[in-house]
Amino acid sequence: MDDDDALPSQPQRIAPQSGTAFKLRRGDLLRVSDPFGEQVADLFAFQDGEAACSLSSGRSIDYASKVCFSVGDVLYANDSQPMFTIVADTVRRHDFLMAPCSQEMFAKLHHCQGPHPSCFDNLCRALQPHGIAPHQIGTTFNIFMNVAIDLDGTVRVLPPTSRSGDFIELRAEMDLVCGLTACSAEQSNNGSFKPIDFAIVRAAVAHDA
Amino acid sequence: MDDDDALPSQPQRIAPQSGTAFKLRRGDLLRVSDPFGEQVADLFAFQDGEAACSLSSGRSIDYASKVCFSVGDVLYANDSQPMFTIVADTVRRHDFLMAPCSQEMFAKLHHCQGPHPSCFDNLCRALQPHGIAPHQIGTTFNIFMNVAIDLDGTVRVLPPTSRSGDFIELRAEMDLVCGLTACSAEQSNNGSFKPIDFAIVRAAVAHDA
Repeated sequence: MDDDDALPSQPQRIAPQSGTAFKLRRGDLLRVSDPFGEQVADLFAFQDGEAACSLSSGRSIDYASKVCFSVGDVLYANDSQPMFTIVADTVRRHDFLMAPCSQEMFAKLHHCQGPHPSCFDNLCRALQPHGIAPHQIGTTFNIFMNVAIDLDGTVRVLPPTSRSGDFIELRAEMDLVCGLTACSAEQSNNGSFKPIDFAIVRAAVAHDA
Repeated sequence: MDDDDALPSQPQRIAPQSGTAFKLRRGDLLRVSDPFGEQVADLFAFQDGEAACSLSSGRSIDYASKVCFSVGDVLYANDSQPMFTIVADTVRRHDFLMAPCSQEMFAKLHHCQGPHPSCFDNLCRALQPHGIAPHQIGTTFNIFMNVAIDLDGTVRVLPPTSRSGDFIELRAEMDLVCGLTACSAEQSNNGSFKPIDFAIVRAAVAHDA
């Protein structure tokens, strides 16, 4: 085991309207922070080495019997295995209904003509070196995204309630390949694009591979 | 063109707690009926010949800006192509949040010990001859499933509001392979399991393959 394994990795910054990918081992903690406030980060994940096992909004909502996830809640994979447990959360307002923003979303909802950066494209690019194809990227866990659901079922995207320094912390419940973005959608981020910070606290392991 | 193509196909009955699969051509109408009332039917679909293109709850909710779908609403694929348009609906209460019921769901939520029939297993069995693997089956459009979302995000599964003879009709917007069930979950069907009927009205086509 590397002595640094139990220490937080160097915090990383995701530039505005971009994305990245990284691996977590079971037990690792992922902290996602909003350095300037009102900025969404889309998260998707696969079991490391088994891309058929991926994050499932439908299973997670069913098993939690709620659409708002916070401390103590589990995000499940499509095969019903736990992928993440939320262990800290200063915001308590995230979305698990919406697909990541995409070129098609900007065209359909915002009549955008030209190319527009998007979480979907950024996840595709970041996860491609891990062998992930675009169609395998499903509904993301949209950290800090503030979606109101009215009693008639109408969904409204509101400014995030996150302020500078707010964060969420998720424990990996299996070895994972994760994609994470600083969201590219005007409406989701109250009209401006900011970076997202993340850090990984490595779990102590007896035998490092 | 076969003269029968513009006529409704013989209505089919799906036995309680079972499922089936069938193909639709673009323009076909699929009518799903509840013959006895309070019975849910889970629907999933793939583009015929392109299993990477499949039904997406996350895209559909995003593009509709609502979680309750009825007449005029479009169900989208993961690549943002329209798959279905709802053209008739006597119930107006369906779910698009929940994964299909599964062995794991019955164990997790209802402490079920032994095997339990499930929509997920029934969809897997029905779609396997079409080359579909279990992990490719995502969040279903749960016809007649009555899910209340409280303002705090709590989700409650209530008895369906469908009565005997109620139906929904969906137009296929591309050539499709569909899986459809008569749902196996006690809670979703007010405690009893009934069949589901469906019929296909074939679109008139100039040149039948």
